[in-house]
Amino acid sequence: MGRYEDFQAYRTKMNCRILGDDTQRGHHPDGSARPGGTLVTRRFFGLDGKTYEDGALPAKTKEMLGLVASMVLRCDDCIAYHIDQCIQAGATDAELWETFDVALIVGGSIVIPHLRRGVEFLDEARLKG
Amino acid sequence: MGRYEDFQAYRTKMNCRILGDDTQRGHHPDGSARPGGTLVTRRFFGLDGKTYEDGALPAKTKEMLGLVASMVLRCDDCIAYHIDQCIQAGATDAELWETFDVALIVGGSIVIPHLRRGVEFLDEARLKG
Amino acid sequence: MGRYEDFQAYRTKMNCRILGDDTQRGHHPDGSARPGGTLVTRRFFGLDGKTYEDGALPAKTKEMLGLVASMVLRCDDCIAYHIDQCIQAGATDAELWETFDVALIVGGSIVIPHLRRGVEFLDEARLKG
Amino acid sequence: MGRYEDFQAYRTKMNCRILGDDTQRGHHPDGSARPGGTLVTRRFFGLDGKTYEDGALPAKTKEMLGLVASMVLRCDDCIAYHIDQCIQAGATDAELWETFDVALIVGGSIVIPHLRRGVEFLDEARLKG
Amino acid sequence: MGRYEDFQAYRTKMNCRILGDDTQRGHHPDGSARPGGTLVTRRFFGLDGKTYEDGALPAKTKEMLGLVASMVLRCDDCIAYHIDQCIQAGATDAELWETFDVALIVGGSIVIPHLRRGVEFLDEARLKG
Amino acid sequence: MGRYEDFQAYRTKMNCRILGDDTQRGHHPDGSARPGGTLVTRRFFGLDGKTYEDGALPAKTKEMLGLVASMVLRCDDCIAYHIDQCIQAGATDAELWETFDVALIVGGSIVIPHLRRGVEFLDEARLKG
Repeated sequence: MGRYEDFQAYRTKMNCRILGDDTQRGHHPDGSARPGGTLVTRRFFGLDGKTYEDGALPAKTKEMLGLVASMVLRCDDCIAYHIDQCIQAGATDAELWETFDVALIVGGSIVIPHLRRGVEFLDEARLKG
Repeated sequence: MGRYEDFQAYRTKMNCRILGDDTQRGHHPDGSARPGGTLVTRRFFGLDGKTYEDGALPAKTKEMLGLVASMVLRCDDCIAYHIDQCIQAGATDAELWETFDVALIVGGSIVIPHLRRGVEFLDEARLKG
Repeated sequence: MGRYEDFQAYRTKMNCRILGDDTQRGHHPDGSARPGGTLVTRRFFGLDGKTYEDGALPAKTKEMLGLVASMVLRCDDCIAYHIDQCIQAGATDAELWETFDVALIVGGSIVIPHLRRGVEFLDEARLKG
Repeated sequence: MGRYEDFQAYRTKMNCRILGDDTQRGHHPDGSARPGGTLVTRRFFGLDGKTYEDGALPAKTKEMLGLVASMVLRCDDCIAYHIDQCIQAGATDAELWETFDVALIVGGSIVIPHLRRGVEFLDEARLKG
Repeated sequence: MGRYEDFQAYRTKMNCRILGDDTQRGHHPDGSARPGGTLVTRRFFGLDGKTYEDGALPAKTKEMLGLVASMVLRCDDCIAYHIDQCIQAGATDAELWETFDVALIVGGSIVIPHLRRGVEFLDEARLKG
Repeated sequence: MGRYEDFQAYRTKMNCRILGDDTQRGHHPDGSARPGGTLVTRRFFGLDGKTYEDGALPAKTKEMLGLVASMVLRCDDCIAYHIDQCIQAGATDAELWETFDVALIVGGSIVIPHLRRGVEFLDEARLKG
């Protein structure tokens, strides 16, 4: 598996662990059901999804906003997720590179290692398209 | 002076101190000229301006990217600057509030005090329009 | 007004601006109603309040968790807010100072200026008690 | 080895490299002893341990404070360490999930990838109990 | 009072509140002595001072290290403190501007508002010299 | 390959992908050339290199400034890069450990896991010298 599949598989597995029902969350060694995300956690995940829906701004722009925020906060998984969402919303490479520019200038050279991994993920994600 | 004029006046004064010529930078008590920004600093300021020019993405979108990055990194002056630039590039209130949404969800409740000051600045900036 | 009243008054005014109804949000110069927080923003504020209610952990502990998170992320308004909430939930000074310890050790000397302002706020808040 | 053992083994090895005596720190290729942590570094490590001892707040609460601080600052190793310490201090799953809530709401969606890895670590740590 | 005196006066007052003895810390409205910093807090402040003493690196270099760290973490008070310490350790303007360069490039444009306030503080501090 | 070679090889490969010419950047599945870094990105990388050249401060000091900034911002790749540059500029172990001290005190215990990995990298880099 490449990085693209690894990322998607782990994200799905752990979201299921956090948000799933009793069966999906598994059991502790003593047989008791493992607790999962609280009502607050579940609502936050729901709200997170709702944030990027089409509105006054199209979903594509919102995903680019999510991408630049993830880059300056330097979270590789969040960057990978939003690059994938940007592609699915129709963002071109030229649009993504200009989004990278804003992240680089606002966030500085500390963003560079995350840019490298983001570009590698972008190349792999384009191969799945 | 309201916060809008304070912000613009201080920004202009200090950019002049950092990027200006010998006359603009003033003198030390001993009469020697105060040094200002190095070549690296000057080039960085130039590059910063260039980042938000129209390209594959319009300036308005780039300014919203700059705004969301500033909000999650929680810099009030940067937020004020990009709100002002968004307005000048034609962003509507509805577009700005959806940009605030992404910042709030990605960055969490720690963004809220900056959102309050950003909204106050937005209201004042609209009065100047 | 001292810092305690300033903080509370500004917070109330701007929350009203963001979450209030049409009358509370005021109007643009052209007479049109100012938009306020979107549905996402409003739900996030609601969820934020819900997070600190009594549960498996008492509200007091949750407010101390909110305080330490605010200190290491270095947001003065959030620190003031959670100190006030900790006091209302019955936290003692000794408990607050040990919370400050964790923030200082995890977050480092960069937390110190925020600790100074937090202690000043604490002293003022105790005077209102 | 699972992630739990990897984490503990690496932490022990490197703490020994930083804080150990001449024998434990090893040698440079030229046979000279490798320097380790300075007096400042050693005292900081000592102070760090002292911070979480029982006081006005019980160790369990302090470890939850350390956990929430680590989550909003997004350090996976620190999260793993404090989850382990919380468990040893008797924290229940319900208490840990409410600690996760505060981290998620204060720190935003950027915390989610760290929550996923934290939950995975928690499940593995419970299996060792 | 200018910003330089304000900064020094507030820092002295609050350090006295945190680290001082019973008399210096004042009293609660009910006449009981206000608690101050715990042993952990006091030791941390002591260790912080010790970190910048001459060693393998001269104090001047260490203060520049403290300055660049404060700039990329964007703490105005910490920046002011280390600029003052750099001046007292003999740093030239040229050395300080190259330190600013590193902060600007590593930390990005989000550092700019802090650079503006740092330069203003530097100019005022030079007037006291 | 050890971590030292892995780091250097990945950095070289991705910088080539971002800054290289058409041949070096490769092609999309449809045969079209992959875009690379924009003019802003390329200039930023150039400016980044220029920042650490000898000036009023020697390159060695600037690299230590870059190192402490990278440590408090907690970027492992940036830490590895600047440790390597410090070594090539002649920094001694004693100087590096005092740089670590400043990072640890300013940034707090959240820096510790990055210190562990930095020390491991330092030991490996010294073996190449």
